[in-house]
Amino acid sequence: MKSYVSDDMIFALATCVGKSALAVFRVSGEGSIASFASCFSKPERLLAAKTNTLVYGTVTGVDDVVVSVYRKGHGYTGEEALEISCHGSLASISLMNEKLSQLGFRQAEPGEFTFRAFLSGKIDLTQAEAVNEIARSQSRLSQTLALERLGGALSARIHRNRDLLADAMSVIEVQLDYAEDEIGGDTSFPFDEITDARDDLAKLADTFRTGSLIGQGAKIVLAGAANAGKSSLFNLFLKTDRSIVSAVPGTTRDFIESNCEIAGINVRLFDTAGLRTAGEEIEAEGIKRTKALMRSSDLLLYLVDSSDPEDGYESISERLEKEIPGVEKLFVWNKTDLPSAFEMPEGFIELSVDSAEGFEALVSGIVSSLGMVSDSNGCELLIESPRQHRSLVESVRSLDSVLSLAREEECLDVISVEMKEALDQLGYICGELTSDDVLDRIFSSFCVGK
Amino acid sequence: MKSYVSDDMIFALATCVGKSALAVFRVSGEGSIASFASCFSKPERLLAAKTNTLVYGTVTGVDDVVVSVYRKGHGYTGEEALEISCHGSLASISLMNEKLSQLGFRQAEPGEFTFRAFLSGKIDLTQAEAVNEIARSQSRLSQTLALERLGGALSARIHRNRDLLADAMSVIEVQLDYAEDEIGGDTSFPFDEITDARDDLAKLADTFRTGSLIGQGAKIVLAGAANAGKSSLFNLFLKTDRSIVSAVPGTTRDFIESNCEIAGINVRLFDTAGLRTAGEEIEAEGIKRTKALMRSSDLLLYLVDSSDPEDGYESISERLEKEIPGVEKLFVWNKTDLPSAFEMPEGFIELSVDSAEGFEALVSGIVSSLGMVSDSNGCELLIESPRQHRSLVESVRSLDSVLSLAREEECLDVISVEMKEALDQLGYICGELTSDDVLDRIFSSFCVGK
Repeated sequence: MKSYVSDDMIFALATCVGKSALAVFRVSGEGSIASFASCFSKPERLLAAKTNTLVYGTVTGVDDVVVSVYRKGHGYTGEEALEISCHGSLASISLMNEKLSQLGFRQAEPGEFTFRAFLSGKIDLTQAEAVNEIARSQSRLSQTLALERLGGALSARIHRNRDLLADAMSVIEVQLDYAEDEIGGDTSFPFDEITDARDDLAKLADTFRTGSLIGQGAKIVLAGAANAGKSSLFNLFLKTDRSIVSAVPGTTRDFIESNCEIAGINVRLFDTAGLRTAGEEIEAEGIKRTKALMRSSDLLLYLVDSSDPEDGYESISERLEKEIPGVEKLFVWNKTDLPSAFEMPEGFIELSVDSAEGFEALVSGIVSSLGMVSDSNGCELLIESPRQHRSLVESVRSLDSVLSLAREEECLDVISVEMKEALDQLGYICGELTSDDVLDRIFSSFCVGK
Repeated sequence: MKSYVSDDMIFALATCVGKSALAVFRVSGEGSIASFASCFSKPERLLAAKTNTLVYGTVTGVDDVVVSVYRKGHGYTGEEALEISCHGSLASISLMNEKLSQLGFRQAEPGEFTFRAFLSGKIDLTQAEAVNEIARSQSRLSQTLALERLGGALSARIHRNRDLLADAMSVIEVQLDYAEDEIGGDTSFPFDEITDARDDLAKLADTFRTGSLIGQGAKIVLAGAANAGKSSLFNLFLKTDRSIVSAVPGTTRDFIESNCEIAGINVRLFDTAGLRTAGEEIEAEGIKRTKALMRSSDLLLYLVDSSDPEDGYESISERLEKEIPGVEKLFVWNKTDLPSAFEMPEGFIELSVDSAEGFEALVSGIVSSLGMVSDSNGCELLIESPRQHRSLVESVRSLDSVLSLAREEECLDVISVEMKEALDQLGYICGELTSDDVLDRIFSSFCVGK
């Protein structure tokens, strides 16, 4: 990693720039404390400070600050480090930036603090990625899941399987050493151990779709006739929202977009003008854009006005499946508070947007359509990193080869090559094996100060 | 102060909302540590933690956090308090907000932490105001000056004068007690002491214009003919700028606006289309707006192209004084690198924008026109609070009355009423005497978390 030198002193603002009560700078690297002490009003106190203590003082001409002291081995990076908390003014931030540069600290690259934590062995690569996943997190569910990975749950699961496979590998190697180059005879091939690991890793790989949907957020599109109650449902979602991201109205005239949280899942919710409207013509371009939006969605919610004899709900599911194939769909039988014009077709979810009756069932339907667990019991370990997913898939593929080669009683040295590949892929996930390229890609997507 | 209850536990986010490495929550109030410990992964460690130490742990389902512990009497508010540093994600911030509310912490009002620091006697009212002045600070000079006030320099100066006046008051009261209701005889009236205090307070009051100009920023308008080099000078100011606020192009077509720092002073710099242009007609409305801008400015920089025989620089100062009366003006004899078409009139500053020759002299001219000291020696104590200014002016007014009444050998009880008023005004400045109204006004202008 050409840009990350690991033996100098770095600094960065760790909080957002803006008028606020506090701003926090991070510095890390051997010599940080002595260097900072040279501009501090109570240098002896800072130099003598124990790890994990706070020292209050002044940086002359800059600001009054509270300094958190971390001795080597403690703190985030595992290096000698400080966190300097100053007033959250533009002037304080600018002056502190200047002062730290003058003292010989280098402005940190994005993710460089976490990179140092990784280098010093404080965290492994899955945990480093979890740090970034937390920073990007926009819903409580994605936060919870990333926190679990940060806590080491993913590492532990990978290591468990790797240990299992390493044991199997040593059985194979013993057989190789004794020139028993074929399967069979007295010694038995560790089919069970490898199968167990393979199945567990495949299960973990399968969590990727859901995990990344939670991490990146799901795209849900509301469709249906103009009078079907799409806008009311849109507003109901926003109203019941416990979301973090405030509603931002969209800018295109073809649909309205808003961020909200449904059952703890971050959702980009779209209200479309509809594929058909009663009486009103939609221009061809608008229809094209709406259909493109639907095709790219994770879930399509189609609303029917059950009280309107004109609403052409019949065979809508067949029509939609033809027009928007391969996208998850939910059909909503809306306005159940009014007399129904027809009998509800099978597979529809009953709803009255006005009274919110049926809303909970709809939310459950959305959760299961997205293949997710709901907010309250979202404790299953999921992955959201495409990199981790790729390695898991590769590892499973290699293990499948191992098992089929073994069943075909293929030479052990051929098998051991595939076993090694499977193990290597697990090594990549946690970062025991890795290339500068990969590290560069992972850490450069972090924000500065992380 | 109806909104500020002083005996409950409060919390607020002390950093800006946004994706960043860290976000910091402040909590304060008796019982804070025990309450927070109930959601913390290592409650015993937190409960046993000494003041000014850091404890790392997890708030389940929320985030991993580092907690700064302040026991009563330590820390910002002087109350038992914590600073909780979590990941700077929207989810972390939202979840922490929720968790702290659940634990019984009340969302703090703007300025409530500083208010508690004031109540507990950690700081006086001039220091509380300095906290807010630092938060608003946009230049290094305003920051330096506010820091000095935060350090207590203003309080000290007020107290020194108040002590002087209190001594004088006791002399007067002794005379009153002995029924010596008239001046003269054996006992002498403390003219010198009162005059000293009066002069020092008047001098301090006089710093208000400069102080508020530094605090709020100065408005400087560039004017002159279209070819005089206004835009080049505008760009030169921005280029040599060590400013905190990045350049933001204005939105009106009559002038361009940018924030920059000149000699440490925060400046809103305006480049106008000029009052007259060679050949080109400016619409009447534009001229009207430009003149209004000039009239509201703190300084007008008028540029003349010294090489252009067509530039009507003659009697420009008289003309401008008539059109824009009462505004500080500086006249710049630009393009000295070219052969001069005329001899430079008196009082102009020579400049070549292209070579930057004369630029330093121009900056000095600006600094003295604004009545300011320059960046490097800006250590004089200045005030920027209108409230402090009002009280100082009132105090000086009362002392003037005292002195003139004493000279007229007026009754001592009449004089002592004016003396008391002068002393009360100084009490208002530091907050020993104050009303809820005033406190409300001061602290409600703070940001939340301060």
